[in-house]
This record gives sequence, C-alpha cells and structure tokens, in this order.
Amino acid sequence: MKLILAIVQDKDSNRLSNKFIDGNIRATKLSTTGGFLKEGNTTFIVGIEEKRVNEVLDIIRETCQAREQYMTPPISLDLTMDTQMPYPIEVQVGGATVFVMPIEQFHQF
Amino acid sequence: MKLILAIVQDKDSNRLSNKFIDGNIRATKLSTTGGFLKEGNTTFIVGIEEKRVNEVLDIIRETCQAREQYMTPPISLDLTMDTQMPYPIEVQVGGATVFVMPIEQFHQF
Amino acid sequence: MKLILAIVQDKDSNRLSNKFIDGNIRATKLSTTGGFLKEGNTTFIVGIEEKRVNEVLDIIRETCQAREQYMTPPISLDLTMDTQMPYPIEVQVGGATVFVMPIEQFHQF
Ligand code: NI
Ligand code: NI
Ligand code: NI
Repeated sequence: MKLILAIVQDKDSNRLSNKFIDGNIRATKLSTTGGFLKEGNTTFIVGIEEKRVNEVLDIIRETCQAREQYMTPPISLDLTMDTQMPYPIEVQVGGATVFVMPIEQFHQF
Repeated sequence: MKLILAIVQDKDSNRLSNKFIDGNIRATKLSTTGGFLKEGNTTFIVGIEEKRVNEVLDIIRETCQAREQYMTPPISLDLTMDTQMPYPIEVQVGGATVFVMPIEQFHQF
Repeated sequence: MKLILAIVQDKDSNRLSNKFIDGNIRATKLSTTGGFLKEGNTTFIVGIEEKRVNEVLDIIRETCQAREQYMTPPISLDLTMDTQMPYPIEVQVGGATVFVMPIEQFHQF
C-alpha cells in the first residue's frame, strides 16, 4: 500500500472524484486553501496497492493537468460609448501537486 | 514517533475524540468527505511514540469497528390505509481506514 | 523532497502563511480542530526540497513558538461596588507540532 496525497484545483475536484469512483479507487477529500494566492483547492487522500499507483497518477494527470483555456473578459463600457468588444485571452487553469508516500501499516476495521 | 492517519465515520468521531483524551493521546481532527458515496467522515492525525502505536490502533478498532445495527424504517403509509408496520432491518455502520506512517523528524516548538 | 506537516494555532496561521509566501515556500492549509481542548488550529502541508527543510522549520519556530503573553482580564464588578482593578496575567499562546515525512514520488502536473 501507498498513500497518495493530491492537491488539485476545486474546479477539477468533482471530475476527479467521479474518475476515482469509476476506477474503484477510494479517496477521501479534504477542503483546503492556499498555495500562494490560489484559493480554493481540494486535497485527496488515496490509499492504494503498490501496483495501482501509476493508474492513480495517470487519472490525476489526465483530469487535472495544468492547461490553457480561452476566457472572454466582460465587455468594457466607457462613458464615451466607445465600446470595445473584448477578445478572448488565454489563462492557465488546473494543475496538481502529488505526493506518493510510504506506509508502514494499513488497516481496515 | 509514528504518524497515524485514521479516517472514521462522523458518528464515531466524538466517541473517538473522547477516548483519545482519556488515553492522553493527542489528535488533530480534519473534516473530510467521501470514499465512494459515504459522506461525512472525519480524519484524525495522531503523532505517537512507536511503543504506543498498538494502543492507538486498539482504541480505534474498539470504537469505530464496522458493525451491524438494527434500524427501524419509518412507517410506510399508502392511500388504501393498508398500513404496514415496518420491522427493523440490519444496516452496517462504522468502520475505519487507518494508515501508520514513518516520520523522519518530530518537533514541538 | 520532504513533506512537512505543521499544526499551529489559528492566531499564528496568517502570519505563517505570509512568511511562507515571502520565502517562496508553497503551503496548503487545512482547517483543523483539537488536540485535547485546544480548538481552532490550522494544519499546513508543505512540499519542499531536502536542503530547504531547516529553513522551513526555522520559519515555523520563529513564527509560532509557544510563548508567554500578558493578558488583562475584564474588570470584575461586584454588588458592593468594591471594584477591583484587574492586573495583567501571563498566559501561554502559540506552539507548533511538526512532522517531517519521507516522500517516494513527487509530481506536478
Ligand atoms: Ni484503500
Ligand atoms: Ni504527539
Ligand atoms: Ni512544492
């Protein structure tokens, strides 16, 4: 058994929960904040057999990987009525920080 | 020192806290969710001397072990007034997932 | 890489967050309770390169170390109007419990 601790953005957390359920991987969720100014992330604790560690890492990478997304900022109005149509800008979303940790004993009571 | 991470059902969490206090065992509680559809569990972090690990495991097992409980479902009424008295059914409650983890340094400041 | 788990009092938690930001140390915050009757503490998870472990421990010690503080209790009034001016008493605040833990794999996706 290994313990995997994965810190992901809130926006990816429901999708990751669902992937874990589909994959029959038990995960416990902690509500967390921080990492510089990035508010609102979720920490997953997963206990998993050694031979399935890569499977869990693949799921986290595929679901949460940092990626670029186009976002359209709101229309800016100014008093001269000289309205500028905004164009989409690229922002980075997602990302995961993952620790795989040794376990000395694992019990289910 | 070892670090024990114990994930238990909310319904057992106050009793477990009290047992830890009685046993002079310092525990920190995290509010957590999940593990498939099981909402509402609590994660305890316990830092403990190696020779007391079994004592802590015994307390968790005795307090939180999965067990069967009889529960009486609410009376079902139907429109024909043909009321069925419900009889108690067996449900499983409790259970704990426990990780014992190595520590390289332990400090109290 | 090591994982540092630090449990500190809520009253020190914002100062510690700021010190971590100043030091370019990534930390994730969990809201936690307990340790006997001490309500309201915060758990920080820090992933850090081995050579910076002492730097992180120093920051935690300097920011959160248990210390004595003078506190003035509220004025006690009694019915005889024999008002006692309270004098400051010494109370202990702060303190941190810190675990440094081994990591087998560290990933950022
Ligand atoms: Ni498991
Ligand atoms: Ni301790
Ligand atoms: Ni890091």
